[in-house]
Amino acid sequence: MKVNGTSYRSIWRDRNTNEVKVIDQRWLPHDFRIATLETLEEFSTAIREMCVRGAPLIGITAVYGMAKQMARDPSDTSVEESSTLLKATRPTGVNLRWALDRCENTLMPLDPDQRAAAALQLADQMADEDSETNRLVGVHGLEIIRRFAEKKADGEPVRILTHCNAGWIGGVDYGSAISPIYQAHDEGIPVHVWVDETRPRNQGALTCWELAGHGISHQYVADNAGGHLMQNGLVDFVIVGTDRTTSGGDVCNKIGTYLKALAAKDNNIPFYVALPSSTIDWAVDDGLAEIPIEERKEREVTHIWGKNGEGSIVEVQVTPDDTQACNPAFDVTPRRLIAGLITERGITEASPEGLAALFPELRGE
Amino acid sequence: MKVNGTSYRSIWRDRNTNEVKVIDQRWLPHDFRIATLETLEEFSTAIREMCVRGAPLIGITAVYGMAKQMARDPSDTSVEESSTLLKATRPTGVNLRWALDRCENTLMPLDPDQRAAAALQLADQMADEDSETNRLVGVHGLEIIRRFAEKKADGEPVRILTHCNAGWIGGVDYGSAISPIYQAHDEGIPVHVWVDETRPRNQGALTCWELAGHGISHQYVADNAGGHLMQNGLVDFVIVGTDRTTSGGDVCNKIGTYLKALAAKDNNIPFYVALPSSTIDWAVDDGLAEIPIEERKEREVTHIWGKNGEGSIVEVQVTPDDTQACNPAFDVTPRRLIAGLITERGITEASPEGLAALFPELRGE
Repeated sequence: MKVNGTSYRSIWRDRNTNEVKVIDQRWLPHDFRIATLETLEEFSTAIREMCVRGAPLIGITAVYGMAKQMARDPSDTSVEESSTLLKATRPTGVNLRWALDRCENTLMPLDPDQRAAAALQLADQMADEDSETNRLVGVHGLEIIRRFAEKKADGEPVRILTHCNAGWIGGVDYGSAISPIYQAHDEGIPVHVWVDETRPRNQGALTCWELAGHGISHQYVADNAGGHLMQNGLVDFVIVGTDRTTSGGDVCNKIGTYLKALAAKDNNIPFYVALPSSTIDWAVDDGLAEIPIEERKEREVTHIWGKNGEGSIVEVQVTPDDTQACNPAFDVTPRRLIAGLITERGITEASPEGLAALFPELRGE
Repeated sequence: MKVNGTSYRSIWRDRNTNEVKVIDQRWLPHDFRIATLETLEEFSTAIREMCVRGAPLIGITAVYGMAKQMARDPSDTSVEESSTLLKATRPTGVNLRWALDRCENTLMPLDPDQRAAAALQLADQMADEDSETNRLVGVHGLEIIRRFAEKKADGEPVRILTHCNAGWIGGVDYGSAISPIYQAHDEGIPVHVWVDETRPRNQGALTCWELAGHGISHQYVADNAGGHLMQNGLVDFVIVGTDRTTSGGDVCNKIGTYLKALAAKDNNIPFYVALPSSTIDWAVDDGLAEIPIEERKEREVTHIWGKNGEGSIVEVQVTPDDTQACNPAFDVTPRRLIAGLITERGITEASPEGLAALFPELRGE
């Protein structure tokens, strides 16, 4: 998607120099910086220190790291040691382990002198696959925006509320929830996005940065405001991403998603969830009963990062000293509140039958 | 209520020196400072610059200002000019105008040399009335806490979620929503309070300061967290204050209140509103249709105040430069979501009949 009028992905290979470049997301939304990653240490640090965020992007970054390392030392030992080192950067990253296992399985049967090229090809392919999946999620979601646009007076925007950052910088390109919005904008359909700030980590500020870069109309709102906007007819539909979707159609997403789904239901506004099918956990049916919710550091709630008057990024404490907090990171939105799941294969109802019909080959996994 | 073990009101008169003292709330929750107000200019500044907050407290502060001025110049001109000057500190303050009109009406018929004492008596009386009203709200709300406490295992706290700051520093003492909680704690009933941070102005931090001062167990949570806490059985009931209650039982309160009421309903958790009857607007029935919602400055959402590492209070910007925001300050919770209204005369259902039965003499106003 675009930043200041130029198209970017969140990771890419310079086709001339072969350099791997990423957007260093630690500086967003205040500063747009590009980093070049070359050594295994640089790739590891980029993942560990969250220059790159989001499960697919982390996995792809790791595979580019393997490719670069293979150009220096393509031995069996190097494959194994590099993979182990990269996996350790995020011990709980399921997608990271999956991507590196796939890479190891690709490389080990090959002659060492073919490994650098093969790893590079795999990384490129994974990036393209991720981008294409999210593009397709957007193609299907776009149909929803088109339906609302048809009912609007000329020039009046379709008004969409979103929570958290389900945009392109969490993946390679397009994003999930924001993918249809980019495609609508590129088709010339007027859209306006209400961006939940998404406390406690304020990922809404990243969404604002993305939307501004692509030239899409938007306003940042407190998470508290969405119900009021819906009560007053200012929201046509809600769309969010998901961290984990159950086989039954429940959605585990950023904390606060459930509250927006309730408000949408109460005001007869459709609540959609956009997802690549890789987020479906076929082993889990009932999200509320079965998904443990991560509790994160209290300090994320009691303190806030931002840019001070001198342009430096600093942390301030909002609460009195010694205030204790509770910081659940996700909540579960039951399927009964969801109007539809938007996947790369189309839109389905949030139910076991709906998902199974769309992904019959995955159902039994 | 208590601060560091000592009982305070938010405004008081030193019975020995006659000095009027207030808690300078601009420094809360980071610093507890007491200011002595003497001149008319000091009283005006205290109101204008929000050393004192909350409608009743502002009105009472103004009447103490009149009393101090009468001791210097009790002439008719002084009564009129002082009242006009104090009213101008908050042009939209209905309660402020009401309090000063009541003061003028009390003073003008009197001999000038009686006016200082009469104004002082009136201010004392208004402070006592406000405190007593809120104490009674708490007495009735305490019954709800007692009912939950009876069902708990020994020592297990009643868990209460609240939004915004409906505590004692917004009035003279006790507060509205927090009044029952103080009284439960003072009776030895174990309570635990989930404090919504209440974006964008983070009034939850003030509630934390109050509760900590009084020694009540609490945790600060993102506004997004309440639904998850309720889904997981961690909330016994919700209690909030109100800025304006309609004759029909709808409640206009801090933005985000509606979302908590929806979550409470969805989880069969009672949602109570605590209010002195002075917040009832008998001329309005349908809150959603009839109450205009104030939109406040965008900067309240895009920027946040807090204490930096050096202990200074500074403002930081969370969003990218030039991000536009939308900042509605209140929302309306429809009566159908409210389990009961807790007033100084008892608890009633949120309905025209319920309120009219409790306040028959006010109904026709």
